[in-house]
Amino acid sequence: MTIKEGDLVLFIYKGKRELRKVIRRVRRGEYFHTHLGTICHDDVIGLEWGSSIKTSTGGSILVLKPTLSDLMEQIPRRTQIIYPKDAAFMIIKSGISPGSLVVEGGTGSGSLTLCLSFAVGESGLVVSYETNKDFLKLASRNLKRFGVKNVVLKNKDIRDLDEKEVDAIFLDIGNPWDVFEQAHLALKPGGTICCFVPSYEQMRKVVLSAKDNGFGVAEVYEVLLREYEVDERRTRPKPWMIGHTGFIIIMRKIIDSDGQQSQIT
Amino acid sequence: MTIKEGDLVLFIYKGKRELRKVIRRVRRGEYFHTHLGTICHDDVIGLEWGSSIKTSTGGSILVLKPTLSDLMEQIPRRTQIIYPKDAAFMIIKSGISPGSLVVEGGTGSGSLTLCLSFAVGESGLVVSYETNKDFLKLASRNLKRFGVKNVVLKNKDIRDLDEKEVDAIFLDIGNPWDVFEQAHLALKPGGTICCFVPSYEQMRKVVLSAKDNGFGVAEVYEVLLREYEVDERRTRPKPWMIGHTGFIIIMRKIIDSDGQQSQIT
Amino acid sequence: MTIKEGDLVLFIYKGKRELRKVIRRVRRGEYFHTHLGTICHDDVIGLEWGSSIKTSTGGSILVLKPTLSDLMEQIPRRTQIIYPKDAAFMIIKSGISPGSLVVEGGTGSGSLTLCLSFAVGESGLVVSYETNKDFLKLASRNLKRFGVKNVVLKNKDIRDLDEKEVDAIFLDIGNPWDVFEQAHLALKPGGTICCFVPSYEQMRKVVLSAKDNGFGVAEVYEVLLREYEVDERRTRPKPWMIGHTGFIIIMRKIIDSDGQQSQIT
Amino acid sequence: MTIKEGDLVLFIYKGKRELRKVIRRVRRGEYFHTHLGTICHDDVIGLEWGSSIKTSTGGSILVLKPTLSDLMEQIPRRTQIIYPKDAAFMIIKSGISPGSLVVEGGTGSGSLTLCLSFAVGESGLVVSYETNKDFLKLASRNLKRFGVKNVVLKNKDIRDLDEKEVDAIFLDIGNPWDVFEQAHLALKPGGTICCFVPSYEQMRKVVLSAKDNGFGVAEVYEVLLREYEVDERRTRPKPWMIGHTGFIIIMRKIIDSDGQQSQIT
Repeated sequence: MTIKEGDLVLFIYKGKRELRKVIRRVRRGEYFHTHLGTICHDDVIGLEWGSSIKTSTGGSILVLKPTLSDLMEQIPRRTQIIYPKDAAFMIIKSGISPGSLVVEGGTGSGSLTLCLSFAVGESGLVVSYETNKDFLKLASRNLKRFGVKNVVLKNKDIRDLDEKEVDAIFLDIGNPWDVFEQAHLALKPGGTICCFVPSYEQMRKVVLSAKDNGFGVAEVYEVLLREYEVDERRTRPKPWMIGHTGFIIIMRKIIDSDGQQSQIT
Repeated sequence: MTIKEGDLVLFIYKGKRELRKVIRRVRRGEYFHTHLGTICHDDVIGLEWGSSIKTSTGGSILVLKPTLSDLMEQIPRRTQIIYPKDAAFMIIKSGISPGSLVVEGGTGSGSLTLCLSFAVGESGLVVSYETNKDFLKLASRNLKRFGVKNVVLKNKDIRDLDEKEVDAIFLDIGNPWDVFEQAHLALKPGGTICCFVPSYEQMRKVVLSAKDNGFGVAEVYEVLLREYEVDERRTRPKPWMIGHTGFIIIMRKIIDSDGQQSQIT
Repeated sequence: MTIKEGDLVLFIYKGKRELRKVIRRVRRGEYFHTHLGTICHDDVIGLEWGSSIKTSTGGSILVLKPTLSDLMEQIPRRTQIIYPKDAAFMIIKSGISPGSLVVEGGTGSGSLTLCLSFAVGESGLVVSYETNKDFLKLASRNLKRFGVKNVVLKNKDIRDLDEKEVDAIFLDIGNPWDVFEQAHLALKPGGTICCFVPSYEQMRKVVLSAKDNGFGVAEVYEVLLREYEVDERRTRPKPWMIGHTGFIIIMRKIIDSDGQQSQIT
Repeated sequence: MTIKEGDLVLFIYKGKRELRKVIRRVRRGEYFHTHLGTICHDDVIGLEWGSSIKTSTGGSILVLKPTLSDLMEQIPRRTQIIYPKDAAFMIIKSGISPGSLVVEGGTGSGSLTLCLSFAVGESGLVVSYETNKDFLKLASRNLKRFGVKNVVLKNKDIRDLDEKEVDAIFLDIGNPWDVFEQAHLALKPGGTICCFVPSYEQMRKVVLSAKDNGFGVAEVYEVLLREYEVDERRTRPKPWMIGHTGFIIIMRKIIDSDGQQSQIT
């Protein structure tokens, strides 16, 4: 249970106001520089996870194994990422589990992709589509760095998706309604489509378009996260919070067996 | 991809205000009675998931494969359950993934247990402790009904936990601080402890007690979920919402290598 | 400082879960019946405000002078009322103060009207328009009951408003944009228009229509109120909360002196 | 209705991201400098409220009469101020109206004082206590600048308050419970005490201490404000919001006529 060369390590140390978190892959001969002084990676190798290490100037740095949430939050990015609070809720609502086949539209920097990869496990598969080559290159590097093996990235419009019998489709693109027809074909009966959009106009268009495309029982959510400060003196919510990331819309593929699904949804 | 005898089925149909959701295991010869009329399970067998079926009196009922969230929300209960919004966030923050060894204190009705079971997959294991025999019996029945195989239930105080090298411990009990010493011993270095408590007094006591017991980098969260109504006429948040479930506290097991961890956390 | 015949009294007593609040005008010979027993108004007269009184069966009822918020919350209604949380914020943003001339569109049951009446005081005036005669009758009765003297109710479409040099206009109607032209004419230069609408579609239409009608610096708000429970054992947010009432849009009348206001707003 | 020398003017102009707002008293010969260029106060005098004025370099600046909310938000401060969202709700809950006698403990920079001054009007009076001389000097300057006449500032501990038959007492101090005995004596029967505190520990101590000091029917609130962005392209909540200011506790002075008030509260 000690840190080995090549491990991803989360360094945590005091910043001016809040704790700072940095993720590095540990390699012999490399250094990690902070405002609290420097540490040599060589001194990290062999340490137990959860230990503290002293910097060159006596500062103290904690070394931890990064969690999925740490990886998502620290992912190198060129796009707005999906936050853990949203990704976690989307997945629990999506019906996927270890072994599922999942398609993602809009890889972006790969933060949701990473999360989906964890959710389906080694026996599952995530296929993610991204038209922007620069984003795809970054996402590919990020996923490789995190040792992800169950993801296939495709530099292709998701409207041309190749998969069939898909368990769930996740869309983090500006115009999810343009994909509904193809998504319906690719999904298993009863499969889930999950859209993440920042504006009301998009949220509304997703819900109203979905009905015409064979999706039903739409649920629309927004996840708000409140953080608290607790110290010896007092307990209170943090003075600032993220006010908005996006709306989550969850829908199921409906089979129009008797032309009656509109009665229900 | 059709419904077979023995499958768990989520029936969705119109209630007076909101959609109603009921989960049943499909068995030949049984009936499902609703205010919209009755359906015979025999007629459900062989249907495609996502189909609609007509009741005896012409009502329409949708048949879907229940998602993890559906199972958690519909779980038969004798205790306050942990909601999907909270469970999903706890898990993404906990560092667990398919294959992890997880311990839970306070099985209750088994809703978080079920969620943990999905998260660690077939290659992982969840051991859950519950002192109340009636709760344990119910949880056991619930998990069996959902076909869960990677969970061991123990009718024992979690302070007497047997596991070692545990990846994460989840505590949904009134006095989590009483378990911190044993939890620290059972966890892997750097492992995660995740507590869920309803009141400020408990939240504060968790955070302050943890420091003395070798846990660090405590983060305290509250997840608020807003639901939206979208129809042809308009879009708006639902007029009522759940105002509070509980606080989530995430901490890591710290190794006191140099007596300096208090500098960081 | 004792209660006199004819005073409005707020009775507070224990309900099954929460405190119950009822407002009555005290009149000799009348009775107030509760599930805790009965009290005779005669016994209330002469009591000090803030006293408790015993019912016929030994129950205890507290007698208080109702605040503005109590009056608004307990107002007899046939429409959705504006809540104190929203009314208070609208008024502090509106620029009105004791002495102001205020116009309201959509009297409804009169809850916002009452609040505006308090805000402008005896030296001010509120003119409120309502096309529905039944609503107006109810609002008239409510305001009379509360002893309000600085309000004029008009059974007329607010688009035919008669006032000039108005300090602020409050619109609690479904189609506020239909009034913008007339509102602009009626307002003082720089005066405020304040709209309250439940849906996004309306909120958006208000903001976009306003620019074309000479209103600027639009601000859109939503006020969320969280209530807390504190007792000997614990402190926590209440388990349920109001999830949505409406959006508040505040705008100022802009004078198009140089055709440049669009640069700013 | 034109701007005169000596008027307080709110200048609004485009900043890099958001609109900038600055309040100045207009005086002949003075200049207002911005990153968009300079304007001479002389050119503002005589303009209609709500007009735009061009700067030296062609920028456009809107001139408006500041509302109470503008004054509170822009008040020169050396302390944490109370925001309009909180002040407005406290006042609507407090039972005060034009003509009331109000006592404030903790003048601070005077933002709540200003708000109370508006609420009680010319016929009312606000007496505000502040032990810190520097704060009192600043508050005095602020209130004078805003032309407030119905406020008396006292450089004294509020525990030595001189007033009797007070309608409501507002406490924005760290230890409100230390004032409860004196506050109870000073209030009218049934009068209101309103506390604003940032932490849970304080909120809890306020509520529990109050019962022993003759206050009842405590209500605890938190006001959260969500702002929205609407433009031609889309509508959405702002990405950041204020996560916490403080808790509002409202209580009434109870007369212990029969030793039974504890049954109710």
